[in-house]
Amino acid sequence: MPYSRVSSTTALIDEGNLTQLEFLALDSTFNFADGHARQELTASQEKIIGDLPELFAQAASQPVAELERTAFANYCRLLGQHSFPLDAGRVFTCYSSSVAMEIVARSLATRTDSIALIHPTFDNIPDILRGVGLRLVPLPEDELHRRDLDPRLLDDVESVFVTTPNNPTGRVLTADRLRRLAGQCAQRGTVLILDTSFRGFDSRAFFDHYAVLEASGCRWIVIEDTGKLWPTLDLKVGWLVTSADTGLPVADIYSDILLGVSPFVLALIGRFVEDAASGGLGELHRFIAGNRRLLRSALDGLPRISFPDQESRGSVERIDLGERSSSRLVLEELCERSVFVLPCRQFCWANPAEGDNAVRVALARPTESLATGAGVMREVLARQC
Amino acid sequence: MPYSRVSSTTALIDEGNLTQLEFLALDSTFNFADGHARQELTASQEKIIGDLPELFAQAASQPVAELERTAFANYCRLLGQHSFPLDAGRVFTCYSSSVAMEIVARSLATRTDSIALIHPTFDNIPDILRGVGLRLVPLPEDELHRRDLDPRLLDDVESVFVTTPNNPTGRVLTADRLRRLAGQCAQRGTVLILDTSFRGFDSRAFFDHYAVLEASGCRWIVIEDTGKLWPTLDLKVGWLVTSADTGLPVADIYSDILLGVSPFVLALIGRFVEDAASGGLGELHRFIAGNRRLLRSALDGLPRISFPDQESRGSVERIDLGERSSSRLVLEELCERSVFVLPCRQFCWANPAEGDNAVRVALARPTESLATGAGVMREVLARQC
Repeated sequence: MPYSRVSSTTALIDEGNLTQLEFLALDSTFNFADGHARQELTASQEKIIGDLPELFAQAASQPVAELERTAFANYCRLLGQHSFPLDAGRVFTCYSSSVAMEIVARSLATRTDSIALIHPTFDNIPDILRGVGLRLVPLPEDELHRRDLDPRLLDDVESVFVTTPNNPTGRVLTADRLRRLAGQCAQRGTVLILDTSFRGFDSRAFFDHYAVLEASGCRWIVIEDTGKLWPTLDLKVGWLVTSADTGLPVADIYSDILLGVSPFVLALIGRFVEDAASGGLGELHRFIAGNRRLLRSALDGLPRISFPDQESRGSVERIDLGERSSSRLVLEELCERSVFVLPCRQFCWANPAEGDNAVRVALARPTESLATGAGVMREVLARQC
Repeated sequence: MPYSRVSSTTALIDEGNLTQLEFLALDSTFNFADGHARQELTASQEKIIGDLPELFAQAASQPVAELERTAFANYCRLLGQHSFPLDAGRVFTCYSSSVAMEIVARSLATRTDSIALIHPTFDNIPDILRGVGLRLVPLPEDELHRRDLDPRLLDDVESVFVTTPNNPTGRVLTADRLRRLAGQCAQRGTVLILDTSFRGFDSRAFFDHYAVLEASGCRWIVIEDTGKLWPTLDLKVGWLVTSADTGLPVADIYSDILLGVSPFVLALIGRFVEDAASGGLGELHRFIAGNRRLLRSALDGLPRISFPDQESRGSVERIDLGERSSSRLVLEELCERSVFVLPCRQFCWANPAEGDNAVRVALARPTESLATGAGVMREVLARQC
């Protein structure tokens, strides 16, 4: 039941944050707003849900530390992350990636006052970082992928935050770029933070990030997230993983906020990971690719409409409405017809105008519902563009 | 797998926070450290766990807003809170009471810089409040219960934080005291914050707090918590509930951290509330009272050992070890025998020495395990006291 200070839809589209727009859509028939996994369960996932009472009993009897290690290690291996740490005090299981983010931000704020942040990215990241008092310096995505960071930028900040694959663009930091970036951070003592919440959708992000980070010698933090992949009704965890010595009070701040997550959720995640390893992950990738094709063809041939993220494999897709189009008009009209997507304005946290002509559509939805929603989008866009 | 900077048990007992001590105990046979609900499921609760697959399906099909309202409204009514608000933007469902606490603290820190906080209380409350930069002023529990707050104290702070029933003492703020306190806050524009996480154990805290708060006209926040009552393997929610206008950016900060909790957890809580309303709550009260009697009689007759919270009905019990006793020695020896309880030092956040001679034992545990643990405590205390 949470609403922000702005109450009308129009005001929210202009001034609200993305999560507040996502609230509006929560119980709507055509919610393509949030990036949570809302597709139907596959047959083998249905089977896991049928076993929930046994999973509860198992979770009650097994040591939590064991459930935690198994879920984390198998999740990492599933996504090609073989050099993950298991040492004491380096893996913190959180209720969600945003809780992990809050803990990272609060830890950073005790020791540093500035951070370079990828631009664009989901707005709760800059909002949390600003909320704890950090000064943000934009790190344009194009720059990040093109060349080494400008030394002047690095001299200006004490940490660097990169979302990879990025949200909403889907762009993946290559192993080579990560190596160079981590090297630059190591040289200067800068803390490198990666949010890899959307990694599971894109095998190009399956190279062993932990090996690259460890080899660089930099201080690093990685946020992993199980919440985007499987339709577990938001039973999920976020993992906050750190280099051996970050110089930050992560363990203390973590323990101010939680003792740990539910062992039941850990056991459930463990089962979904197993299922993904036995073919479920490939099935998920084909499903998202299918929904992406469906959306693109449903809007095919509309004047000025384009899909800027041609290479993206993430579970969200940006639609560029073309110059002179207003995403607000589109969103309002879609909203009246119970179809919810997100404006891109808020992703462009340092320069909202850059996002004015684009919207983001969530793809992790039942295909039929996306097909109907895409039909409505076509009608609306045909008039507005 | 989270550990703090201090690694030995001795160092943790002296310097760690309570949650870090609770980590140590997590997978121990005799974990009487944390205040989470770890008793066995009752027969009717077992039945609910048997229905988890159906609950999952129900949660997937029902609107989240409806699940949220039902769970919250029925939880409030169960505990005598009939004047709870349901208006938009006044109830925020969180992953836990500590996440609610973090959101409250971050909201307070945007507008205020000082807070009066009950003393003693669980140390993550002062740690979170300090962590966001607030200056804390101790509000001694005895003072709070004895008379109106000293106007000089109220003039010195912008908000007042009270845990009721308190942890670890179990003391309950009476309706009359709450009325006076809320009146004083209303007069000065002070924000009054109540943490009622342990309310469910004590019918003396079942008077309608929301009616008293609303009638006072003060700005208020209440944190409710389902996490202490039922052995749901930490599937739980914390509710952050506010007066119509707090003047604080609670909705914005909430939406930086979460979109909402799992509808599955809401549906599960809904069922546990129903079960509690049909006799389960009485059963729980008798269970805790029984475990309290067991602990007290197990230690009966030991020289200098006493139970300072004679009136407490909460799920934790303090043991006073008597003057000149060191809780550290007791904790170390218990720890060697795999029995974990908490020192009281850390609860006394403004003056740790006050807590040096006491430990806290969690009672929401299987009776057999508590009986065995109490036997070990008796042996150790007989030597150490």
